[in-house]
Amino acid sequence: MSYVSVEKPNILLLAGGVGGAKMAEGLAAIEGITLSILGNIADDQIFHGLWVSPDIDTLTYSLSGLVNRDQGWGLANEGSRALDMLKQLGNDTWMFLGDRDFGLHIHRSNRLKQGYSRSQITSEIAHALGIGTPLILPTDDVVQTRLKTKDGWILFQDYFVRQKCAPEVLDIHFEGADQAHPTSKALKAISEADLIIIAPSNPILSIAPILSIPGIRDALTASKATILALSPLIGGKPVKGPADKVMKAMGLEASATGIARYYRDLIDQIVIDHQDQASKAEIEAMGLVCSLDDILMCTRQDKIRLAHALLANHAAFNGFSCPEAAQ
Amino acid sequence: MSYVSVEKPNILLLAGGVGGAKMAEGLAAIEGITLSILGNIADDQIFHGLWVSPDIDTLTYSLSGLVNRDQGWGLANEGSRALDMLKQLGNDTWMFLGDRDFGLHIHRSNRLKQGYSRSQITSEIAHALGIGTPLILPTDDVVQTRLKTKDGWILFQDYFVRQKCAPEVLDIHFEGADQAHPTSKALKAISEADLIIIAPSNPILSIAPILSIPGIRDALTASKATILALSPLIGGKPVKGPADKVMKAMGLEASATGIARYYRDLIDQIVIDHQDQASKAEIEAMGLVCSLDDILMCTRQDKIRLAHALLANHAAFNGFSCPEAAQ
Repeated sequence: MSYVSVEKPNILLLAGGVGGAKMAEGLAAIEGITLSILGNIADDQIFHGLWVSPDIDTLTYSLSGLVNRDQGWGLANEGSRALDMLKQLGNDTWMFLGDRDFGLHIHRSNRLKQGYSRSQITSEIAHALGIGTPLILPTDDVVQTRLKTKDGWILFQDYFVRQKCAPEVLDIHFEGADQAHPTSKALKAISEADLIIIAPSNPILSIAPILSIPGIRDALTASKATILALSPLIGGKPVKGPADKVMKAMGLEASATGIARYYRDLIDQIVIDHQDQASKAEIEAMGLVCSLDDILMCTRQDKIRLAHALLANHAAFNGFSCPEAAQ
Repeated sequence: MSYVSVEKPNILLLAGGVGGAKMAEGLAAIEGITLSILGNIADDQIFHGLWVSPDIDTLTYSLSGLVNRDQGWGLANEGSRALDMLKQLGNDTWMFLGDRDFGLHIHRSNRLKQGYSRSQITSEIAHALGIGTPLILPTDDVVQTRLKTKDGWILFQDYFVRQKCAPEVLDIHFEGADQAHPTSKALKAISEADLIIIAPSNPILSIAPILSIPGIRDALTASKATILALSPLIGGKPVKGPADKVMKAMGLEASATGIARYYRDLIDQIVIDHQDQASKAEIEAMGLVCSLDDILMCTRQDKIRLAHALLANHAAFNGFSCPEAAQ
């Protein structure tokens, strides 16, 4: 099954971690489109001297099929021997890093030391693992999300993994963002896109850091593409992660309406879950096209079905011809 | 069982890899002595951006009991997931590095980056793994063995592991040795030793690099200690490794006599294998005390028995009292 139009449409997905990776998998399975993915690098953090890039790795592992399907991140068939040794040697090991995963972090860190850019390294890893979809970074500079808690500023993984999202978030800062330069690949992908999809990722912790890179938001605003966001909430709750908590902490309403309001200056359309249909009228009143769908992606079929539905919506909106039904 | 003298004797072992580690284990099991070990760092090499120290690690793994007993190096209960990933990502993986082993290399490399010295890191690892015997480095500077082959100069692990000791060795150089500074711990251990044992390690590739550090050989010469070498050859052949090949390449006779001749300016005594008894008279003619023993150490009992025998010899030579029999 493929989407046919005058041109093979260019689809760009803005993606965070697990939710973004699931959407990426769905879209990558569809023929007749040219897919690119713009990932989040602001939850990168150094562990044991190695550069770890959790969101990009989740995308990489998902698209290569190596991902641990039960947890949605990390690798299947993992071991913990390296981490066990690090623990025995007195290191903090609250961040789980498996042995195969360590192999990748060792490789990335070594390539960084050799002078390769994060973009180059990401592309070469994707290629080595058989991924055909371009995995694009918004910047090759270091941008790191910091969250202010009552005990001070902490890095994202400290908040997310070590403290299990327990501390109240008082403020959020994307350190390094104001000095960062967008990659030319990111700007090109945005300008060439026919449809830009914002994955059902945490808007504040996964998508906002991408938008924070100077030039990225402007390029999106200037783009001729339809921009469509998927709500990461179902019945006002995130499938995974602290989106609702963090939205409330930032003074936003943790609802489909709140998501639409957050993105309203950027997007044309939003797809929200059936459970949030009460928000539809309110969202449409903002001037956005709002569709209802089943957002939850458990199986591969779910991911592909949702991807088809998004493209069908888009095709209708833009006059593309497209197959009548998802598989 | 313990050796009793006026003072608890200080024993210093100069050790390379597998042979040195076996001797270290034997000596470490004996009560009534104070053992220190001076290890070889010249076969250190960077792999995948991580600092790997094979001889020191073999000592560490052996003394902690974590060693893979079947091979005499590396760790028991190892995995190869990290290395498999590195291979999948396009890296040369001829040097086997297990997952637990990677944990240690990651730790060491991170500590180096944090500014700790190789000595400090070695000590802290030994402590974390429950090793009571001080593991001393001859220098904290980088000294690396390079071997000249017809294709140019290569590092030790390239020769030993990648090329399986196949190339003819035309010359050997301990790069960095002339600029290196001995550690104060090494000099102190030498000056305080009552007995210095040169392990049955490769004299040219394991012991000579230690002796090449400025100040180390002078300290040994100035030491009041008896210096005793164990021949690494049995019937003129090494138990493991290329000692005979390298000795011949360096114009030395690959025999117990050749070993004695190589060490003669440094040592007082040498212990050679029963199979090499034909060399005894020749060695004694050099003015060295020469004893015959079974050099081969397969079991833990073998290691302890040989250690006892060395100390008994030494006690006899120096008038220490000692137990009548090894266990």
